[in-house]
Amino acid sequence: MMRRGFQRVARFAHHKALPRTHLLPRLHQASAFGSSTDSLVARFCPEKTDFKDYALPNSSWCPDMLSLYQEFLEKTKSGGWIKIPSFKSNREHIQGLKLPLGLVTDSDKQDWRIFTRCILLEGQGYEYVIFFHPSEKKSVCLFQPGPYLEGPPGFAHGGSLAAMMDETFSKTAYLSGEGLFTLSLNIRFKNLIPVGSLAVLDIQVEKIEDQKLYMSCIAQSRDKQTVYAKSSGVFLQLQLEENPPQQQ
Amino acid sequence: MMRRGFQRVARFAHHKALPRTHLLPRLHQASAFGSSTDSLVARFCPEKTDFKDYALPNSSWCPDMLSLYQEFLEKTKSGGWIKIPSFKSNREHIQGLKLPLGLVTDSDKQDWRIFTRCILLEGQGYEYVIFFHPSEKKSVCLFQPGPYLEGPPGFAHGGSLAAMMDETFSKTAYLSGEGLFTLSLNIRFKNLIPVGSLAVLDIQVEKIEDQKLYMSCIAQSRDKQTVYAKSSGVFLQLQLEENPPQQQ
Repeated sequence: MMRRGFQRVARFAHHKALPRTHLLPRLHQASAFGSSTDSLVARFCPEKTDFKDYALPNSSWCPDMLSLYQEFLEKTKSGGWIKIPSFKSNREHIQGLKLPLGLVTDSDKQDWRIFTRCILLEGQGYEYVIFFHPSEKKSVCLFQPGPYLEGPPGFAHGGSLAAMMDETFSKTAYLSGEGLFTLSLNIRFKNLIPVGSLAVLDIQVEKIEDQKLYMSCIAQSRDKQTVYAKSSGVFLQLQLEENPPQQQ
Repeated sequence: MMRRGFQRVARFAHHKALPRTHLLPRLHQASAFGSSTDSLVARFCPEKTDFKDYALPNSSWCPDMLSLYQEFLEKTKSGGWIKIPSFKSNREHIQGLKLPLGLVTDSDKQDWRIFTRCILLEGQGYEYVIFFHPSEKKSVCLFQPGPYLEGPPGFAHGGSLAAMMDETFSKTAYLSGEGLFTLSLNIRFKNLIPVGSLAVLDIQVEKIEDQKLYMSCIAQSRDKQTVYAKSSGVFLQLQLEENPPQQQ
């Protein structure tokens, strides 16, 4: 288990004074697999894969979700947008790579799921799809909470929206500049999201500075008449490491 | 759908200048069911009920979780602590009551689950139990994330911890003073929580002012050697309303 906090690691990196250099692999422009947005996208969002993509329409999607999905899908053809595939686990996204800082855990568990895909029953849990715009470093997440994400009766739990924001920040941060760990997440809730309806999350990378990515998010109804929440997130930039072949 | 934000409602309440009085039922000391902590606890945490309590030990609990649970259970006998039962839905907690502000949604869905009980398979999702100390207005949540709550391989998703914090804040806020809606949630992440291990969340109500409850939380390992995250949360005080008998 890592016993040194992210902030401390980041601070050491900023001052170029790492007391234990194995803690923080410094960022190199020419890493083993490159760190440009294009190469990150190519690796993280493979066009062909055997893994199931859960970010595809199903019969539970409400008409708003379905039509906005189609709009963005059109924009992937000419508008610079990319649809991010959503596999059952981050392990499938980062095949052949591993966390830095010696971050490993021993476990005999087998069935790992990324939290926002914890419920595989269509329409009951998280329904979402993320589109990313590499050159503008922004994302849009279409999010439809199901009845297993309830908080107040009939409405999504604030924590389910917090997690959806964190996950969208996370994918955006990684693809925009290898943002790997959430350092902070600040959310102001404005209105409740009715279960089964669409919330549109607009994420923007505001700046990348001192090995940190600063992002903002607004979650609102499709017609922008109802703001559900606004948030900001800060992620620490760290490169994934290559897994030795025998561990792959 | 409510189209006015929580903050605006709270602001109007603070200035006693409600433009549309149905939006915010003012707080009365003598409500239909009383608002003292004792009466809230008695209603929200029934000693006898037909609903299943999910905050009970099962074979997936790690030894740390189990032994700390037993310690707190002992404290419920003489130390002023209360174990909060955890039903599958908040609907079961607030039987006979409904949300204020006309907050209702139409839905034909049947199987509602509170987000933090979205996965009923023991050990795979959220395992947690909350203990509450009424006179000191503080809580402790024992949280063991399962493999369906993964973020980075082998570790809990930051969003799963955010949701756990929000849920523990929520229960604490309601029992401490009818805190009903999350206004803000600010989290600073320090270290990752290994899947399957115990995180202890210590929540404290810092103050109740201007119809808001201000709370703090620290999540750490049992031995307090590793801080996972620190957070603060603000909740809006609003009373639940009585449901007409025909809707119960």
